[in-house]
Amino acid sequence: MSTAREHPDQTAQLLIEALPYIRQFADSVVVVKYGGNALAGGDEASALASFAQDIVLLQAVGIKPVVVHGGGPQIAEMLKKIGKTSEFHDGLRITDAETLEMAQMVLVGKVNSGIVAALNVHGPIAVGLSGVDANLITAAFRDEKLGFVGDVTNVDPTIVNRLVAQGIVPVIATIGSDIAGQTLNINADTVAGEIAAAVHAEKLVFLTDVPGIRRVADDPSTVMAQATVEELEALVSSGAANGGMVPKVEACCTAVRGGVRRAHILDGTTPHALLVELFTDSGVGTMVVPS
Amino acid sequence: MSTAREHPDQTAQLLIEALPYIRQFADSVVVVKYGGNALAGGDEASALASFAQDIVLLQAVGIKPVVVHGGGPQIAEMLKKIGKTSEFHDGLRITDAETLEMAQMVLVGKVNSGIVAALNVHGPIAVGLSGVDANLITAAFRDEKLGFVGDVTNVDPTIVNRLVAQGIVPVIATIGSDIAGQTLNINADTVAGEIAAAVHAEKLVFLTDVPGIRRVADDPSTVMAQATVEELEALVSSGAANGGMVPKVEACCTAVRGGVRRAHILDGTTPHALLVELFTDSGVGTMVVPS
Amino acid sequence: MSTAREHPDQTAQLLIEALPYIRQFADSVVVVKYGGNALAGGDEASALASFAQDIVLLQAVGIKPVVVHGGGPQIAEMLKKIGKTSEFHDGLRITDAETLEMAQMVLVGKVNSGIVAALNVHGPIAVGLSGVDANLITAAFRDEKLGFVGDVTNVDPTIVNRLVAQGIVPVIATIGSDIAGQTLNINADTVAGEIAAAVHAEKLVFLTDVPGIRRVADDPSTVMAQATVEELEALVSSGAANGGMVPKVEACCTAVRGGVRRAHILDGTTPHALLVELFTDSGVGTMVVPS
Amino acid sequence: MSTAREHPDQTAQLLIEALPYIRQFADSVVVVKYGGNALAGGDEASALASFAQDIVLLQAVGIKPVVVHGGGPQIAEMLKKIGKTSEFHDGLRITDAETLEMAQMVLVGKVNSGIVAALNVHGPIAVGLSGVDANLITAAFRDEKLGFVGDVTNVDPTIVNRLVAQGIVPVIATIGSDIAGQTLNINADTVAGEIAAAVHAEKLVFLTDVPGIRRVADDPSTVMAQATVEELEALVSSGAANGGMVPKVEACCTAVRGGVRRAHILDGTTPHALLVELFTDSGVGTMVVPS
Amino acid sequence: MSTAREHPDQTAQLLIEALPYIRQFADSVVVVKYGGNALAGGDEASALASFAQDIVLLQAVGIKPVVVHGGGPQIAEMLKKIGKTSEFHDGLRITDAETLEMAQMVLVGKVNSGIVAALNVHGPIAVGLSGVDANLITAAFRDEKLGFVGDVTNVDPTIVNRLVAQGIVPVIATIGSDIAGQTLNINADTVAGEIAAAVHAEKLVFLTDVPGIRRVADDPSTVMAQATVEELEALVSSGAANGGMVPKVEACCTAVRGGVRRAHILDGTTPHALLVELFTDSGVGTMVVPS
Amino acid sequence: MSTAREHPDQTAQLLIEALPYIRQFADSVVVVKYGGNALAGGDEASALASFAQDIVLLQAVGIKPVVVHGGGPQIAEMLKKIGKTSEFHDGLRITDAETLEMAQMVLVGKVNSGIVAALNVHGPIAVGLSGVDANLITAAFRDEKLGFVGDVTNVDPTIVNRLVAQGIVPVIATIGSDIAGQTLNINADTVAGEIAAAVHAEKLVFLTDVPGIRRVADDPSTVMAQATVEELEALVSSGAANGGMVPKVEACCTAVRGGVRRAHILDGTTPHALLVELFTDSGVGTMVVPS
Repeated sequence: MSTAREHPDQTAQLLIEALPYIRQFADSVVVVKYGGNALAGGDEASALASFAQDIVLLQAVGIKPVVVHGGGPQIAEMLKKIGKTSEFHDGLRITDAETLEMAQMVLVGKVNSGIVAALNVHGPIAVGLSGVDANLITAAFRDEKLGFVGDVTNVDPTIVNRLVAQGIVPVIATIGSDIAGQTLNINADTVAGEIAAAVHAEKLVFLTDVPGIRRVADDPSTVMAQATVEELEALVSSGAANGGMVPKVEACCTAVRGGVRRAHILDGTTPHALLVELFTDSGVGTMVVPS
Repeated sequence: MSTAREHPDQTAQLLIEALPYIRQFADSVVVVKYGGNALAGGDEASALASFAQDIVLLQAVGIKPVVVHGGGPQIAEMLKKIGKTSEFHDGLRITDAETLEMAQMVLVGKVNSGIVAALNVHGPIAVGLSGVDANLITAAFRDEKLGFVGDVTNVDPTIVNRLVAQGIVPVIATIGSDIAGQTLNINADTVAGEIAAAVHAEKLVFLTDVPGIRRVADDPSTVMAQATVEELEALVSSGAANGGMVPKVEACCTAVRGGVRRAHILDGTTPHALLVELFTDSGVGTMVVPS
Repeated sequence: MSTAREHPDQTAQLLIEALPYIRQFADSVVVVKYGGNALAGGDEASALASFAQDIVLLQAVGIKPVVVHGGGPQIAEMLKKIGKTSEFHDGLRITDAETLEMAQMVLVGKVNSGIVAALNVHGPIAVGLSGVDANLITAAFRDEKLGFVGDVTNVDPTIVNRLVAQGIVPVIATIGSDIAGQTLNINADTVAGEIAAAVHAEKLVFLTDVPGIRRVADDPSTVMAQATVEELEALVSSGAANGGMVPKVEACCTAVRGGVRRAHILDGTTPHALLVELFTDSGVGTMVVPS
Repeated sequence: MSTAREHPDQTAQLLIEALPYIRQFADSVVVVKYGGNALAGGDEASALASFAQDIVLLQAVGIKPVVVHGGGPQIAEMLKKIGKTSEFHDGLRITDAETLEMAQMVLVGKVNSGIVAALNVHGPIAVGLSGVDANLITAAFRDEKLGFVGDVTNVDPTIVNRLVAQGIVPVIATIGSDIAGQTLNINADTVAGEIAAAVHAEKLVFLTDVPGIRRVADDPSTVMAQATVEELEALVSSGAANGGMVPKVEACCTAVRGGVRRAHILDGTTPHALLVELFTDSGVGTMVVPS
Repeated sequence: MSTAREHPDQTAQLLIEALPYIRQFADSVVVVKYGGNALAGGDEASALASFAQDIVLLQAVGIKPVVVHGGGPQIAEMLKKIGKTSEFHDGLRITDAETLEMAQMVLVGKVNSGIVAALNVHGPIAVGLSGVDANLITAAFRDEKLGFVGDVTNVDPTIVNRLVAQGIVPVIATIGSDIAGQTLNINADTVAGEIAAAVHAEKLVFLTDVPGIRRVADDPSTVMAQATVEELEALVSSGAANGGMVPKVEACCTAVRGGVRRAHILDGTTPHALLVELFTDSGVGTMVVPS
Repeated sequence: MSTAREHPDQTAQLLIEALPYIRQFADSVVVVKYGGNALAGGDEASALASFAQDIVLLQAVGIKPVVVHGGGPQIAEMLKKIGKTSEFHDGLRITDAETLEMAQMVLVGKVNSGIVAALNVHGPIAVGLSGVDANLITAAFRDEKLGFVGDVTNVDPTIVNRLVAQGIVPVIATIGSDIAGQTLNINADTVAGEIAAAVHAEKLVFLTDVPGIRRVADDPSTVMAQATVEELEALVSSGAANGGMVPKVEACCTAVRGGVRRAHILDGTTPHALLVELFTDSGVGTMVVPS
């Protein structure tokens, strides 16, 4: 691939081709869900640095990014380190107090800090948040038998909006707390959808490790370029979507039904997939639109 | 002790007696260093809830509190849990990568979140920060042989000032990062002094587990009610102060030399010592003043 | 009674017990009607100083007080001094030009200035207003045979709102003027109710010399702790309320019907009754609520 | 004299001729001292209405007027009404408590309210202040033997500046208070000079009942069109100025030395003398300039 | 005619008579259409200077003027200079590319600059705009056979509102552009009406060379002092209005239907007709009112 | 050359490479002098559209561009069209009244409007100004024998700063006016330098038709990549620079001495030279730096 150093005129040309998109998304909020898997790959530091560049570029051209992240693989690794084995209730993993503590420490004290630090190499750009901060995410126990697992009952986006208004990129770890101050673990995809709706985002982008939503779960050739909320809801209720894709698909629907114009599920392992989606004609992954 | 419920007229009377102090400190920033020991006591949750009440009261009467915290005992407990033993260099403990990771997770993901959650039971009042957020604390390796231990090289108080201006209580975990984004462990007392100076605090208050600074380290009867910066600096250089008290004393001096009007070292295990110091005639602990 | 000086820990405890109330009323406007009788007692200066402390404390903890006052006893004293005797029309006292002039001078030039001066001993906190200022209260002649007595036709709260927004306590003398600039005497209780509604106050508090509203006018044992607007309106129309209590009761109803959440009639001769009502569980006097 | 109704083209022409002055004084603060004598004339109401028109016009064309007033004749009349006779100390009148009370009531409750009401016929334009409001004028006893007579020790113009910034005309009665809240009577001319300097006025205008400052006190033909601060100070120290003119002359000097560009002493009994001075080439009275 | 210099008291009197109008129109936007004919008279520079004085006076007394101008005679003169003769389509003049270029250069580069320069002799008051600036006027080809003649399709008053809010007088040349950036010539009267409606003007004033709208086109004695929108629309549809008066009448109707309170058609060749209309009881020309 | 459509990944890569420059120049003012020659080429519309894209891109990525333009070739063409021949004084061309009028019409009414229209195809981005607007450029006659030619005596950048602060691109035609409102023709390069200094620009960029400043005027191989102010001043005083390059070089020196960090002389006929200079490592043309 040629570089700017070799062909400065090409840089200029490509910037000009990106101009309509830059203008279109100026001042728009774009919520990016960055998966723990994206971080857990072979060259984690390099992937994170590349992701940070993308986010900083978005901000530099006037877009207002908000990052939401998970950290499943990192939590699993930590639990393994302390020799923790999970118990189950009706086949579902129970989040006991120690598991919650580990999850919270890994999400907030490791993954979140790591993303913030990678962004802030470029300047004082990012601030880490968890759902506990300024009561961003209030949650309630889903089922006491499952332990400290919560469902979102309220999103108060004030702190996110204020940081965004100051040119700061909020990076959000998906820990919530109930009204008594008890922290709870929550599904990160779900939170991303709720936050995108609450902050009136223009776009919600899931950076995953798959190329999009498949019409037939087992058939990689059935990735959809575009889907309506109705199509996706049918896909979920028919059972055609499965596994980890379900909360992502549901979150896209939550967001789009909540006023977000477009939701996207992209393969975040492709370098700069976020930029390609935003600044070129080449749609990648699946775009979710209102009906 | 009588209560407000029994003697409402007394509540009124005592409020009136607190009035001059409330007016004096209105709109002032007060940095409170909350020690990990204070949290690690027998009834940790209750102590934390009591501390949270004090901070919320400060904010309710127009003071602008900023909380800085450590977490030594909690880090030690975690290291023990994973069976980590420390190595030493010239008698000093080495913070290797795993130790740093644990320290960061405990400080940011456990202690910090815990304090924030305790405060936010009262409303969306607090936001947790670490030194990584918006490059609040830039640090540099102290000595590579000691591993990931840093000294503060710069404090950028912008994010703290903005949150304070919005009526938010920043709660700061004392992790910093160097300019390459590498996080480093830093002494929490030192950070408290630097931040107090950087935000032009009116007061810096250390909540410790001792009743103040002793003129003679081993003699509890020599606690000073008041001391000048010069007296304390002499105490440190003469070796009369020792152990964990040294960084606290030095931080008081840093803060007062940096423009903070008063620094205090109090026994935080006394209930509501912070309020007694601020709102009554009864000075408690040691007050550090400019010469 | 023990004092803060003796029991600083008690001060702290009582402050903590007041915290929920302080937080609840933060940024709320509380209109306080301060009666001329309260000022005319045996130790006028001391009562006024105590009242001033209460108002300054309210302001110090973030409440926005607005004071409305009368001055009946002081006007009577002045009229006596100049040997003025009143004429009557159908049994009602006639406010002739000289009486109006005396009333205005006493209310604006004596009582109002006295309250403002007592408050401003604590700092540049209060500004005196009469209804003439910035056309705060426009009135119309009630009945030309009664002379210069007016009924409120309009309240323009702009100047009150602006001063309140600047942290100033407006102290309002209840003189109004008609559209030709003719000043008129108006009932202070009525004005208090109208202003409380116009500034969207959270509370209206009447500091009187009785312990509350009686269900049976002559029976002190029938003071009501709480009453709805409907109950009070029935009380007035049945004639059960009488004398000076009627305009107070009507003003409470006006205010509550106009959106004020709670109106109170307290015995202002009890020290710090205002603080006891606001900051403790002990309701004193009668609280008026919507139906 | 022809009127606008008869010669509308002349109105237009004269407006055009006033244009340079209107532009020159736009956004400037002009302090106008309005004497009690001006109010005490044969047709008081008419004179006041005419004065009010002038002030409203100033405000309408973008000037920021501040009115300071006295009330000597009105106070004398009131004292007479209550049969008060003054005592003297070394030939100087003693202001005892009752005299102070009467002075305060007349100045604040009668003269001030009267001016404010006359202005507010034109809209919610004016707010009355005394020196007690927001601690505008702090004073100290001049000589306890003279009773409640004060000298200005501090002017805090914050409340005046705020009202002016909101398009309000402050009307100031010259009662001050000492730091204990004791009100004191102060010379109105002196206050006008101090306030003009404190608010950085462009002009200070005294509306008196004489045509200007005479070089020779007894010789009406020696009225000066212009005088420097030095000339006037020499006039006062030589004793050539006398009587009530001395505080006016001294106040002009205070103001001009304090940064006010021009001070004027005009005959306020000439209709619209203020407008003629401000908006035509015809200087009237004496203009005081820096040396 | 007497002047201010001769009769300063008269200036004052007339200013007082103008006061109610000055207050009434304070902060109101007044759109003034200044015709090219007004500029093309015998003493063009003098007429322009006089017009500039009027506009500056309006601004000085707090009115917010917006000037819209044409330039027909000046364009004709320029076309003559380059020897351009027009072609016609169905009897209508065709604006070919060269004619458009000349029109644009004369309107924007000569007439507009001339008005701006005349205003700015009084200070940095005016900024010239054409419809191209910040897309103030978007237009579309009326009929391609007529060449570069456009009809207004959109007015974006943002730039006008911003300049007005900053105390600047926008001076608008009536060139528009279509969405491809092609400039088009537009009728200036029409633009004036559209802009008056878009900026929510209080008044729209046409300065023409006739004394008003005639009920009978050929009969000068039938000039109407006042007319409703309905009356004027009937006049136009009946053909009773004709020639250059039609777009003016239609623009008045557009403006008044669009919320402008009053539209006026005056004889701008009378000196200061604008001031006479605004600041005296003497209505001149025809005033258009809603039905 | 490959395009974004073909190689979206390359677009992303090149955006990332431009990121440091985008961040570096964010919020900086960049003054771009756009020469008349650049407009007068073979494909004028296309060159202008390309220039407009560059400016819009600058603005889209957070830079604040200000455009200053000349129009020599276009003025010459217009003078030719009306058959105007110039007279001379001591060998210098005389700008008589008609020449000035044509210059003003062409610059303001044609070139300026053309640039504004080309920019505003992208949205309401640009507003045209001449030096007459809000007294941006005050000038004085250079030599009356040369006619209406002026030298800059004052730049009041207020209107430019305000538009820039609102996200508007000012496009400035270099006509000034003297204090009597007489317009004058001024050298556009000189104006560009003065304005760059007055608005505290980060950069001044001359888009010319040559590749930079030559050390030896006749030797194209001596183009300098970088030069200090001192080197250039020596070049001018030694006569080594000549012709139209002199005012450009002098303007660069004026700007840099006035605080502009970098001035550049580029070949504007190279497509997107502006973007290449700003967003790649490849410096083009000559960069002028402080000594």
